[in-house]
Amino acid sequence: MAATVLYMSMSLDGFIAGPNERPDNGLGDGGLRLHEWVLTEPRDPDSGVPGRPAGVNGEVYDEMMATGAVLAGRGTFEPAGGWGGDHHGGVPIFILSRSGPPAQAAAWPLVTFLDDLGTAVVRAKEAAGERDVLVHGAGIAQMALAAGLLDEIQIHLVPVLFGQGRRLFDHLDATQVELEPIRVVEAPGVTHLRYRVGR
Amino acid sequence: MAATVLYMSMSLDGFIAGPNERPDNGLGDGGLRLHEWVLTEPRDPDSGVPGRPAGVNGEVYDEMMATGAVLAGRGTFEPAGGWGGDHHGGVPIFILSRSGPPAQAAAWPLVTFLDDLGTAVVRAKEAAGERDVLVHGAGIAQMALAAGLLDEIQIHLVPVLFGQGRRLFDHLDATQVELEPIRVVEAPGVTHLRYRVGR
Repeated sequence: MAATVLYMSMSLDGFIAGPNERPDNGLGDGGLRLHEWVLTEPRDPDSGVPGRPAGVNGEVYDEMMATGAVLAGRGTFEPAGGWGGDHHGGVPIFILSRSGPPAQAAAWPLVTFLDDLGTAVVRAKEAAGERDVLVHGAGIAQMALAAGLLDEIQIHLVPVLFGQGRRLFDHLDATQVELEPIRVVEAPGVTHLRYRVGR
Repeated sequence: MAATVLYMSMSLDGFIAGPNERPDNGLGDGGLRLHEWVLTEPRDPDSGVPGRPAGVNGEVYDEMMATGAVLAGRGTFEPAGGWGGDHHGGVPIFILSRSGPPAQAAAWPLVTFLDDLGTAVVRAKEAAGERDVLVHGAGIAQMALAAGLLDEIQIHLVPVLFGQGRRLFDHLDATQVELEPIRVVEAPGVTHLRYRVGR
């Protein structure tokens, strides 16, 4: 059975984007810092996806790329240019959107727009089959946590303080949610923390 | 030369206390959850300090107890009852306070109240000698970070989401501060992350 797994790069102080996010500044000021563990390694220009880093980071990257569907919100999808219609490996992409599909989406057969999170999770899990569902974005993470629809959390914890920006964990109720540590992996420039979400 | 080292237990979503902090609820609602890695282990009633946990957690605990001075703010000192005037091992305690010493402090010769952070850091480092200075509390951590007076950060990362409460990293400027990872230690119920603060 597919699990919904949040993959996010986060600063030690909890930010996943810098300040001043705009459509042309999707990661916010300095936000690229959080992705250096992927992006500063050599990239394969023919792969069609951001380059696979070497070593342990590559193994975690491979897990992300082995997911069988993508679930995100429109606030993640649009600044990323819709990943050109293919996030990785041609897997189906489910985008939560209250306002229906944007015009360019007609050219992207892998992308489905849905206005209900529960339906989106069911559809993504069906599409992923035996594989996991890659969940991406702070907004959908918060909604999925609140709805009890997030199964696992994979944080790429980056040794930097941002001070300001967009927090991953925000706008949640004062309800303690226990996490079960699955794995801690120290890697160059990042610590990968994986948890199962308690119910 | 002594280093100022922040020791704080923090939830994955960045909280070091639960909501509704009050003098009689110093850790906030449910805040004790963050200290279970220390407190659920057997305690030595004769030690005069909270009990030393077993195994790897005990080793990290020993490092904290080996510090040669304590630096905290009054917002940490008072809800903790001033640690009875002795945080650990009779080391000097420096409390940042704009309003002077409270009445009961006259009975606590280890405790010095100062109204300037820079002075407090200098005094604490002098007192600690070759040992480190234990820095404790969110308010003083934020002030020391902003002033460039924090040398290291030791986070005891607890696998729980709080949702609401007091954040450790808050009210900081939008200035990226690089951290140098020193050590990641997986331990029962907690992951210890130690960093050197970049300048």
